[in-house]
Amino acid sequence: MSVQAGRPVRVAVLGCGSVGSQVVRLLRDQADDLAARVGAPVELVGVAVRRLDAPREVEVPAGLLTTDAESLVTREDVDVVVEVIGGIEPARSLILAALEGGASVVSANKALLAEDGPTLYEAAAKAGRDLHYEAAVAGAIPILRPLRESLAGDNVTRVLGIVNGTTNFILDKMDSSGAGFTEALEEAQELGYAEADPTADVEGFDAASKAAILASLAFHTRVTAADVHREGISEVSAADVASARDMGAVVKLLAICELIDTPDGQAVAARVHPAMIPRSHPLASVREAYNAVFTESEAAGQLMFYGPGAGGAPTASAVLGDLVTVARNRLAGIRGAGESAYADREVLPMGQTRTRYHVAIDVEDRAGVLASVALAFAEHDVSIQTVRQEGRGDEAQLVVVSHRASDAQLSATVEHLRGMDIVRDVTSVMRVEGEPE
Amino acid sequence: MSVQAGRPVRVAVLGCGSVGSQVVRLLRDQADDLAARVGAPVELVGVAVRRLDAPREVEVPAGLLTTDAESLVTREDVDVVVEVIGGIEPARSLILAALEGGASVVSANKALLAEDGPTLYEAAAKAGRDLHYEAAVAGAIPILRPLRESLAGDNVTRVLGIVNGTTNFILDKMDSSGAGFTEALEEAQELGYAEADPTADVEGFDAASKAAILASLAFHTRVTAADVHREGISEVSAADVASARDMGAVVKLLAICELIDTPDGQAVAARVHPAMIPRSHPLASVREAYNAVFTESEAAGQLMFYGPGAGGAPTASAVLGDLVTVARNRLAGIRGAGESAYADREVLPMGQTRTRYHVAIDVEDRAGVLASVALAFAEHDVSIQTVRQEGRGDEAQLVVVSHRASDAQLSATVEHLRGMDIVRDVTSVMRVEGEPE
Ligand SMILES: NC(=O)c1ccc[n+]([C@@H]2O[C@H](COP(=O)([O-])OP(=O)(O)OC[C@H]3O[C@@H](n4cnc5c(N)ncnc54)[C@H](OP(=O)(O)O)[C@@H]3O)[C@@H](O)[C@H]2O)c1
Ligand SMILES: NC(=O)c1ccc[n+]([C@@H]2O[C@H](COP(=O)([O-])OP(=O)(O)OC[C@H]3O[C@@H](n4cnc5c(N)ncnc54)[C@H](OP(=O)(O)O)[C@@H]3O)[C@@H](O)[C@H]2O)c1
Repeated sequence: MSVQAGRPVRVAVLGCGSVGSQVVRLLRDQADDLAARVGAPVELVGVAVRRLDAPREVEVPAGLLTTDAESLVTREDVDVVVEVIGGIEPARSLILAALEGGASVVSANKALLAEDGPTLYEAAAKAGRDLHYEAAVAGAIPILRPLRESLAGDNVTRVLGIVNGTTNFILDKMDSSGAGFTEALEEAQELGYAEADPTADVEGFDAASKAAILASLAFHTRVTAADVHREGISEVSAADVASARDMGAVVKLLAICELIDTPDGQAVAARVHPAMIPRSHPLASVREAYNAVFTESEAAGQLMFYGPGAGGAPTASAVLGDLVTVARNRLAGIRGAGESAYADREVLPMGQTRTRYHVAIDVEDRAGVLASVALAFAEHDVSIQTVRQEGRGDEAQLVVVSHRASDAQLSATVEHLRGMDIVRDVTSVMRVEGEPE
Repeated sequence: MSVQAGRPVRVAVLGCGSVGSQVVRLLRDQADDLAARVGAPVELVGVAVRRLDAPREVEVPAGLLTTDAESLVTREDVDVVVEVIGGIEPARSLILAALEGGASVVSANKALLAEDGPTLYEAAAKAGRDLHYEAAVAGAIPILRPLRESLAGDNVTRVLGIVNGTTNFILDKMDSSGAGFTEALEEAQELGYAEADPTADVEGFDAASKAAILASLAFHTRVTAADVHREGISEVSAADVASARDMGAVVKLLAICELIDTPDGQAVAARVHPAMIPRSHPLASVREAYNAVFTESEAAGQLMFYGPGAGGAPTASAVLGDLVTVARNRLAGIRGAGESAYADREVLPMGQTRTRYHVAIDVEDRAGVLASVALAFAEHDVSIQTVRQEGRGDEAQLVVVSHRASDAQLSATVEHLRGMDIVRDVTSVMRVEGEPE
């Protein structure tokens, strides 16, 4: 159905948890401003939840709560469906039903968009409706709209994001207090920055979803969560963090999306892993649970977008921003820009990605050790940028930072090093990002 | 005229200087990507300049250069006019003629938009055409679109911007090297960061234009350059910068836009002046000629947008982003969101704005000095947050940081202090921003 002039834009909200309750609150508290900005009143017509009697952070007007989400999304008079349930099902089926029924959709569901975005984009295109999802990446921070629209006249070549607040909190704690991973995780859990089961955050699944969404938009190519190489932070040790500090760097969990020149043109790669970045890099100063996305593009150069990456109210701000756009489009009888996947570039597997490495090696304190280690790197064609000798005797350590090399080259080098009798142990291997080649 | 499917979107560029030449280059180099993103080829049909034979940073295709801008903007077949001439006239007349003739307009002209924006917005509304100007504030940094659209569901309460690269370069130099203003300005001029006549930058005129534009968008109210209180940085001394450093702060030229509670509701205020901000504030780490805009809003909290605030290519990136939006709208036969001034709030004069102050006072080294000085502040109802005594004998100094007070209160306090016989001199008075009340 299309919106008649004068009548309100009708909104159904699916989910009334952390985000949903704040969406409902803002729809009420900012009703006048929303009406002025949209050009018509925005009316909440229903809120779907799992449990009718659960305690809510917001008072939902009587009669609006329902457990029958399917009926709500296909109601004749619903113009916009806001999906803030999360997870794959029933969120996917509900969004598809909403679009098919003629509603526009706003979602904050990174997991779903990263796993099966194309199904949703196609359904939106077929229905001639909008599907917006700013809140799915980096919470309140406007990043998808800038990528999609502000940088539409430029070529983005790289996106580096701190897009998971839990892991940034943990790594920041480890950096500032010298704590180990487990201790820092416990503190994050006590303060509510980490869930009881922290796997999705700590192992990088959440960041990988966001990397897929960022890469798709930045490079006009379909990238799904399955395309993203993923490593979490549970193996990051206090020693790694200290070693980073010694070289003027800091360890961050980064979502990295790159445009890569290949013999046949340009391909894209997306990966999530802990990495050392120099303290002078703008991302290095992103503390606690804050998020930030750093982009490099040909004409604009380096931009950074910084802010709260989660939380009910911040995330709801992003949802409402999308809602205003979508509602305006409904009133104008138009559809905004849909998926842009025209470039259709190849997505490279991690094996073909080349990064720089920081390798810490416990060695015998003997003459010629440095030369032997350097030779091992050279044998696998891994070129060394700097090597630093630290400590003496039993504490003797070499810290090597390489130029760009492939995963395969680096693994072979590490294996080679481990087999050398002057090498007691390879204590840390970590990628280095955010510096010139 | 409206755009027929299949036929290209035709663009006229006015001005081919730093920005215009990069716009022309990107239109050529990124033609395929632009066509894919717009949905039709984007064709350059003319470039207006003052001097046909001046050297250009880009090769303009033969026959496209003209000195007759008026004829170009009103050509029947021009869909979009990009204005990158700058200044008030003839830019304003050309934009008005373009809109009246049915073209959409993209401009980078902060001076014009801040002085006489409403005339242009009204002309665009009357013509049913788009007028976009992302490049007018903070160059490549997407900030107007996020304010206008991403935060449309939120209430922005404050905007703090480092929006002039020249002054940030100078102040950063003074901070890092201890140089005085004149020395730092000369270095900026040598490096091309400051013009031979640096008045527009150094005295805050450029930043004031941007403050007016930011305040208008953030608060949905018309604010022009004349409404903005403006102080430049030429009076900032090496001692001020050192004093800031001592208290863990740094001096920045800030554009500050605030929503202020008044007995009758909410008013807005916009001002540009040097201020001390704590080094822990995200804006403090904006170095050299970079720009950043920091926003506070009710639901999203604190966001920051960072990047290059000037330069031909970065600014052209922002222009092209607008061009893609405007061209897409032309193809769809629609107009995007226009001016939003519905809130129509009162703009407060500076006298009613309350800020915190840092006051450095050379005093006699005698017992009771601190108490007398504190009394002088109290007499004018200026409440003191901290007071620090520094040096002894001839070097004795008191550094007072106040809570929020009005300009009038502070001026009266300073006058009072200057009349006291234990006060040798009030050596520095500077506002303090970016901290809790
Ligand atoms: N929280 C954040 O900071 C944040 C940030 C960015 C993005 N997001 C995304 O926002 C979405 C929502 O997150 P959240 O933190 O608000 O989740 P949440 O607090 O767990 O809330 C989920 C809501 O969905 C409802 N729900 C669950 N299954 C349902 C079903 N089958 N039918 C109807 N309602 C159902 C729940 O109902 P009951 O209340 O009755 O159980 C609950 O109200 C997720 O996609 C998440 O990834 C969240
Ligand atoms: N430069 C930046 O970094 C930057 C950043 C943000 C915004 N901006 C804004 O962008 C705009 C352009 O700045 P710019 O640095 O590119 O200026 P610029 O280098 O001085 O170029 C101005 C251009 O306009 C042409 N021109 C002047 N008067 C004209 C007239 N009457 N008719 C036709 N053409 C005329 C000039 O022609 P000739 O070449 O023949 O003299 C020149 O090509 C300004 O509004 C500025 O505020 C600039």
